Amino acid sequence: MSQVTNQSWGGRFSEPTDAFVERFTASVTFDQRLARQDIRGSIAHATMLARVGVLSDEERNAIVEGLNEIAAEIERGEFQWSVPLEDVHMNIEARLTDKIGITGKKLHTGRSRNDQVATDIRLFLRDEIDVIEVELVRLREGMIELADREAETIMPGFTHLQTAQPVTFGHHLLAWQEMLARDHERLLDCRKRANVMPLGAAALAGTTYPIDRHVTAELLGFSRPAENSLDAVSDRDFAIEFTSFASILLMHLSRMSEELVLWTSAQFDFIDLPDRFCTGSSIMPQKKNPDVPELVRGKTGRVYGHLMALLTLMKSQPLAYNKDNQEDKEPLFDAVDTVRDCLKAFADMVPAIEPKKANMEVAALKGFSTATDLADYLVRKGVAFRDAHEIVGQSVAFGLREEKDLSEMSLTELKQFSDIIEEDVFEVLTLEGSVAARNHIGGTAPNQVRAAAQRARDAVSVLKDAM
Amino acid sequence: MSQVTNQSWGGRFSEPTDAFVERFTASVTFDQRLARQDIRGSIAHATMLARVGVLSDEERNAIVEGLNEIAAEIERGEFQWSVPLEDVHMNIEARLTDKIGITGKKLHTGRSRNDQVATDIRLFLRDEIDVIEVELVRLREGMIELADREAETIMPGFTHLQTAQPVTFGHHLLAWQEMLARDHERLLDCRKRANVMPLGAAALAGTTYPIDRHVTAELLGFSRPAENSLDAVSDRDFAIEFTSFASILLMHLSRMSEELVLWTSAQFDFIDLPDRFCTGSSIMPQKKNPDVPELVRGKTGRVYGHLMALLTLMKSQPLAYNKDNQEDKEPLFDAVDTVRDCLKAFADMVPAIEPKKANMEVAALKGFSTATDLADYLVRKGVAFRDAHEIVGQSVAFGLREEKDLSEMSLTELKQFSDIIEEDVFEVLTLEGSVAARNHIGGTAPNQVRAAAQRARDAVSVLKDAM
Amino acid sequence: MSQVTNQSWGGRFSEPTDAFVERFTASVTFDQRLARQDIRGSIAHATMLARVGVLSDEERNAIVEGLNEIAAEIERGEFQWSVPLEDVHMNIEARLTDKIGITGKKLHTGRSRNDQVATDIRLFLRDEIDVIEVELVRLREGMIELADREAETIMPGFTHLQTAQPVTFGHHLLAWQEMLARDHERLLDCRKRANVMPLGAAALAGTTYPIDRHVTAELLGFSRPAENSLDAVSDRDFAIEFTSFASILLMHLSRMSEELVLWTSAQFDFIDLPDRFCTGSSIMPQKKNPDVPELVRGKTGRVYGHLMALLTLMKSQPLAYNKDNQEDKEPLFDAVDTVRDCLKAFADMVPAIEPKKANMEVAALKGFSTATDLADYLVRKGVAFRDAHEIVGQSVAFGLREEKDLSEMSLTELKQFSDIIEEDVFEVLTLEGSVAARNHIGGTAPNQVRAAAQRARDAVSVLKDAM
Amino acid sequence: MSQVTNQSWGGRFSEPTDAFVERFTASVTFDQRLARQDIRGSIAHATMLARVGVLSDEERNAIVEGLNEIAAEIERGEFQWSVPLEDVHMNIEARLTDKIGITGKKLHTGRSRNDQVATDIRLFLRDEIDVIEVELVRLREGMIELADREAETIMPGFTHLQTAQPVTFGHHLLAWQEMLARDHERLLDCRKRANVMPLGAAALAGTTYPIDRHVTAELLGFSRPAENSLDAVSDRDFAIEFTSFASILLMHLSRMSEELVLWTSAQFDFIDLPDRFCTGSSIMPQKKNPDVPELVRGKTGRVYGHLMALLTLMKSQPLAYNKDNQEDKEPLFDAVDTVRDCLKAFADMVPAIEPKKANMEVAALKGFSTATDLADYLVRKGVAFRDAHEIVGQSVAFGLREEKDLSEMSLTELKQFSDIIEEDVFEVLTLEGSVAARNHIGGTAPNQVRAAAQRARDAVSVLKDAM
Repeated sequence: MSQVTNQSWGGRFSEPTDAFVERFTASVTFDQRLARQDIRGSIAHATMLARVGVLSDEERNAIVEGLNEIAAEIERGEFQWSVPLEDVHMNIEARLTDKIGITGKKLHTGRSRNDQVATDIRLFLRDEIDVIEVELVRLREGMIELADREAETIMPGFTHLQTAQPVTFGHHLLAWQEMLARDHERLLDCRKRANVMPLGAAALAGTTYPIDRHVTAELLGFSRPAENSLDAVSDRDFAIEFTSFASILLMHLSRMSEELVLWTSAQFDFIDLPDRFCTGSSIMPQKKNPDVPELVRGKTGRVYGHLMALLTLMKSQPLAYNKDNQEDKEPLFDAVDTVRDCLKAFADMVPAIEPKKANMEVAALKGFSTATDLADYLVRKGVAFRDAHEIVGQSVAFGLREEKDLSEMSLTELKQFSDIIEEDVFEVLTLEGSVAARNHIGGTAPNQVRAAAQRARDAVSVLKDAM
Repeated sequence: MSQVTNQSWGGRFSEPTDAFVERFTASVTFDQRLARQDIRGSIAHATMLARVGVLSDEERNAIVEGLNEIAAEIERGEFQWSVPLEDVHMNIEARLTDKIGITGKKLHTGRSRNDQVATDIRLFLRDEIDVIEVELVRLREGMIELADREAETIMPGFTHLQTAQPVTFGHHLLAWQEMLARDHERLLDCRKRANVMPLGAAALAGTTYPIDRHVTAELLGFSRPAENSLDAVSDRDFAIEFTSFASILLMHLSRMSEELVLWTSAQFDFIDLPDRFCTGSSIMPQKKNPDVPELVRGKTGRVYGHLMALLTLMKSQPLAYNKDNQEDKEPLFDAVDTVRDCLKAFADMVPAIEPKKANMEVAALKGFSTATDLADYLVRKGVAFRDAHEIVGQSVAFGLREEKDLSEMSLTELKQFSDIIEEDVFEVLTLEGSVAARNHIGGTAPNQVRAAAQRARDAVSVLKDAM
Repeated sequence: MSQVTNQSWGGRFSEPTDAFVERFTASVTFDQRLARQDIRGSIAHATMLARVGVLSDEERNAIVEGLNEIAAEIERGEFQWSVPLEDVHMNIEARLTDKIGITGKKLHTGRSRNDQVATDIRLFLRDEIDVIEVELVRLREGMIELADREAETIMPGFTHLQTAQPVTFGHHLLAWQEMLARDHERLLDCRKRANVMPLGAAALAGTTYPIDRHVTAELLGFSRPAENSLDAVSDRDFAIEFTSFASILLMHLSRMSEELVLWTSAQFDFIDLPDRFCTGSSIMPQKKNPDVPELVRGKTGRVYGHLMALLTLMKSQPLAYNKDNQEDKEPLFDAVDTVRDCLKAFADMVPAIEPKKANMEVAALKGFSTATDLADYLVRKGVAFRDAHEIVGQSVAFGLREEKDLSEMSLTELKQFSDIIEEDVFEVLTLEGSVAARNHIGGTAPNQVRAAAQRARDAVSVLKDAM
Repeated sequence: MSQVTNQSWGGRFSEPTDAFVERFTASVTFDQRLARQDIRGSIAHATMLARVGVLSDEERNAIVEGLNEIAAEIERGEFQWSVPLEDVHMNIEARLTDKIGITGKKLHTGRSRNDQVATDIRLFLRDEIDVIEVELVRLREGMIELADREAETIMPGFTHLQTAQPVTFGHHLLAWQEMLARDHERLLDCRKRANVMPLGAAALAGTTYPIDRHVTAELLGFSRPAENSLDAVSDRDFAIEFTSFASILLMHLSRMSEELVLWTSAQFDFIDLPDRFCTGSSIMPQKKNPDVPELVRGKTGRVYGHLMALLTLMKSQPLAYNKDNQEDKEPLFDAVDTVRDCLKAFADMVPAIEPKKANMEVAALKGFSTATDLADYLVRKGVAFRDAHEIVGQSVAFGLREEKDLSEMSLTELKQFSDIIEEDVFEVLTLEGSVAARNHIGGTAPNQVRAAAQRARDAVSVLKDAM
């Protein structure tokens, strides 16, 4: 049995909390991560209370000074966290009262831990979103520059992992970048909805003190106070929305990772990753494993899991706050860390990707990748598309038997399948001709890639200006 | 073995598809739901092809006429869907060629099923989002009006399902409404990102025909063509984002449902639901079960499941299109149907909720719900909050032993715990006094509830104007 | 408004069900799939009621005859399903009463729809598990035979998708088979727990009629009656356990699919899949896409989704039956169908895989796959493993620079890195030597593969005998 | 840049690992939890190597002594974990080589980190399952004893959270116990499949050393060596199966928690939980919150999340080991801890539940809970069940209007609805009569509850004997 009971609610209890229960229900081991935000929130709350006359200026100043000292203690690693005091809030308040006496007890006037913790997490998430945005921008910029550089590098484009048509490597990289552009929008949409202030909701119904929530919101940089106190203390949409953003982002990174892993295999051999992003094997001395993309791909699962954890957590919860909600923090914290680290790893790694252009080109030449170009050639000569498709299908079947690419067949061989084919067919069967011909917005032609890179660069630039 | 092979790709194949494999891989049994969008997309595509000179006006007109006839056949239930023709696209195209001959084969010029299906689903989702928004608005409006009507109705507010403080029923309903307001924003954010046109991406790399994607986008009401062809055919973010919206919405409805189920129990007995939203028991003649809220709560699982299905589907897929993506449709369709039906059921039911005000009031009087008011009273008389909390805790412990609510104790009894308590304490211990005192933005005071209802009404009105 | 109300519970209701609500809450559109099991259960129930004297033999016989006629009507597609009658149970009972009059109404004596539906689903799942087991056995057998045939075929083994060490193709196939062996065990464990009878639990508390549940259990082939009536009507563990089995199975199939997709790519080109398991492209005439493995990989998501749906459904449900549980059927039905079809597709396809042995061997020779063998050689000559690893690492670095495999280096070149290396090193650097040397249980040596295939064959055989 | 590179694979690398990448890819911060199992595995491996002659007895003894010293250092918290050394395996091996010199490097002969870590996790999980089983048994026993004690305590049974029929509290507790009985079976099934030894699989293909895997398996208490090396290093089914078990268990605990939360509400007020399982409010002095059940209910989400994380992790992974798999540990560790702690909390709490019998009985008398008994009474008098249902439905409608329970109506009033009703009806309308009449296996009659408790006690006893 714990000897110390939490002074914040002990009054009506006849029996101390069981020691195991105390540890089981305490959150301080993980919510101490919110200390900075908790203190920032308390300073704003005390300032508002002074402004509306609930605290005197002296009281407010003593509180602020005490809290700043505590912040410094925490920063220096000197703060003693206590499990019997349950959570970050009570730990800090108890220390404040140690320091400044009875005035410390006045800080909790007009608020509750329910609105306090909801405010802390939103401040935390907003801070972390801003850090994440920096990494995301860095990654997008690195990707755009590499794409621009590789606007003319030809590689096979795949569907069903079968060689389909030649594309440019720059075009492929910009496909990745488009995924991130959507993620960026979702991140900002999430930030917008997270940036609303619960403080003032108190336990669930608001408070009888003459608080001014607009003042506190402004001091803390929130866009507005939350509209409804019951909702404010029980809403965790922002955490779910963040993990949903994170899940889609990690899904995207898993797709890029999958391709990086494929491309570094001996079979594809399309790129080199610098050694510093790889590790070796304890038993096979020749191995150079693409650890970073593999690990990022693996981390997709943990983020999906956190999304599912939070959705499950909130399912069917009656209003308002329930203890279940204590379980919101660990998934959110881990999702934040995972997103930030994976973006950082990618932002470091992507610009260092070295394409092996010769290998890419050889691969693009295989697999009848210009078959569609032949079909289009026939259509331009008046054949209906579906018939052209049939003709080319027969040419391919012939090529498979004879082990010849379309560009390696003689005119006579090609004419077996259609009389309409003439000498000019060989122009459309080159890789360069094929990619250059897809010359419209969104197409893989090098000049389209360069234009798309410029538009992407401009779009990122606008978002950076708003940061 | 199937005798008919799909004319769209049979050329290079030496063996017909296995009959089971044909059925296993076909999508027409479910993707026929996209027929209207498929035809709309084809008409726009043909119109654009005519405008850039790839089709003649006569060809375009024949195609459009043929497609319109097919649409009418489908509408009348006369269209014969064929599994050997695989999907909605080939079924419609085959019928078109039946009708108008070789010109029908030209429709597929400059596009592929990959960009075609991506376009169809986006058109479908946009249509459905607009239907869903109508139901969502209807529900929000019904909730706001009920909240306004019940702005003074007092009920117990709960935390941890323990009586906490009195709140107004209108305030509680507006907490629900706030959840929906965020859902509404997310729905529109999702629509914005879904409303981008893949068409023109062709198989994966764009096309060699001189297409004008801005024309097609405008004809179909898309905000712009997708920026990158590889991304356009492989992106399913919009489906994930919709199911993420849907999961959070259903989570909210599950919370409301949980409360409706609690409130209709014999133990709470706070509300009546009209018989038409309930069903009975085949064995227990007295039962009136709150089926609609229970079923909606149960449907939360299926929507979470669809989100997880789609996230799993896309994990680690290399670019560009893979057959896996065929699995995007059923979860999306079912999520759309579930959201629409659950919103409709709630929009019908919520305005018909009949609060049993007397029962709510009796419940609010129990459980020492004005304990916080007593604490606040003490603080206003100069006691530090934490000390006031302690004093009230002892009063409650006394009340539990004596089976007396705070408002039922005599002044002498109350003074045992603090000398500061005077006759004026009894004002703050009434339910009306308690709720009226929480008089700030977001608080439960009746006038705050009315003002919040008006703000919500205005916000919905702005969104309706934009519909 | 629906004119017909459900006769099973209409008594206390003053208002008919809303037409939309009727459709929204009805389950007959999907639970009619349980008709066969429902009738089987009813026949057993009537038989038991007659045996204990609650029904006369004449009544029992009339009921059984009526139910058999209904079964035949359903089989012939002549049965008229009615949504206002809600579910499969009421549809069948109403038809029975049409046929045999008042005696039909006696069938429901001593049971409720709550225990009836729980019984039906368990019978259904047991039937389907037995069908699934047949397909699973067929797949395992096909895999074992192919493995045996390919016990000496050498291919590169991968870790991190980097060439690691040579393995035999038969060994690789047996790795797949091991996954299925565990799935088989889990399927039977699930069947064991599903095969317990809820009937007799009635609505939730049991019944006042003198029923004999052991008789009914025996008639229906259940291992025993469920021990507790409240649990019996509310338990859906069996559905979750089945979807958990299904999720792990599909995960395994997704891994095999991933490899099949890789192996049919132009870059790997390790195998051929017969045309009948592939489809083509509507735009690229040369494509032969591995549709079956791709689609199976994609279906993994839907099964994971169903597991999550059912777990979410049951979370926090108070006892006993709640309407939420109606949502148990569709995920379970779809999981059953998906598992059965995917297993069938694989059981047809796997024996038809054609390895391209020459390509596999060339690939195994690349990538320094015998580096570990060199290290082991050094250790056998007295070098500590970690030092041997270092020596081989340097040889590989040299090989990368000089573009030479280890087996292509001269003895002089190899001796640069260690004096200990002698002429006999070249034996261990061959592929055949490498695989043959891993000659212990679980190792890749051909004779181990053959022995493992035999053990697997025997294990399947034992399970088949028990079917 | 980190100066120290991992000595286990540095040979072929030209550039040290990036410092961030080093931290990002290292696992030692969490996998050090496997230290005890890692050392146990190494001792068995060295012992086997000595037995087959690969190590001398002196070498083996030096290794064992060194490892035991390291185990003691770890136990005393003196071991210095190093991130540049990546993981628990390399940390321990490096320390061993520090201690005993070059012989330490020989320990890794014939194994790889791939089979080593797979062995460690399985040993860990087996250990933890055994601890979990102890808590599960304790909880089951506590529940059975409480059920036996409360075999005659009457409470309302609910369906749809509406009063349905009276049940006994003991019967309700045994419904919970049945859930746990299935969980217990699943736990043991999981243990059985986890208890198979990967060691000897080496990196992926087995090893060229003359190892004897049966010896190692026996030394470590495994039931057998894994059959296939590729499968052995890449299989994580056991972790998924454990989290699946854990998800179902937590789902069950969430259902019990939901009921405990309901029952401690002011509206139900069916039970008391001792103060030591509850906490209070920082703002509302009267609150006593059922924290333990709420928190357990909340923890359901995290376990579901871990299951989804692991399923996602393994989806589509090609053989054999990939770095993704490093992500298997944290979800498994956390699931293990959550299960153990939640079971412990429940095992402590459940026997301390204090039913408030008078409140339960009053509640059971409300809500027409004996309506089914009236229907059964009518049937016994010859009315068809469906007609009896209709008669009782009308009686209930009358009772609702007149605010009278069935047992409060006069015979004349009852006779309005059916002439057949006589004086003897009042016997069947009592609670005691109602529960006693459900007297068959699985029914709620007190003597059935006592018999069921005895059977449950016996079943647990058999399992305990096998522990």
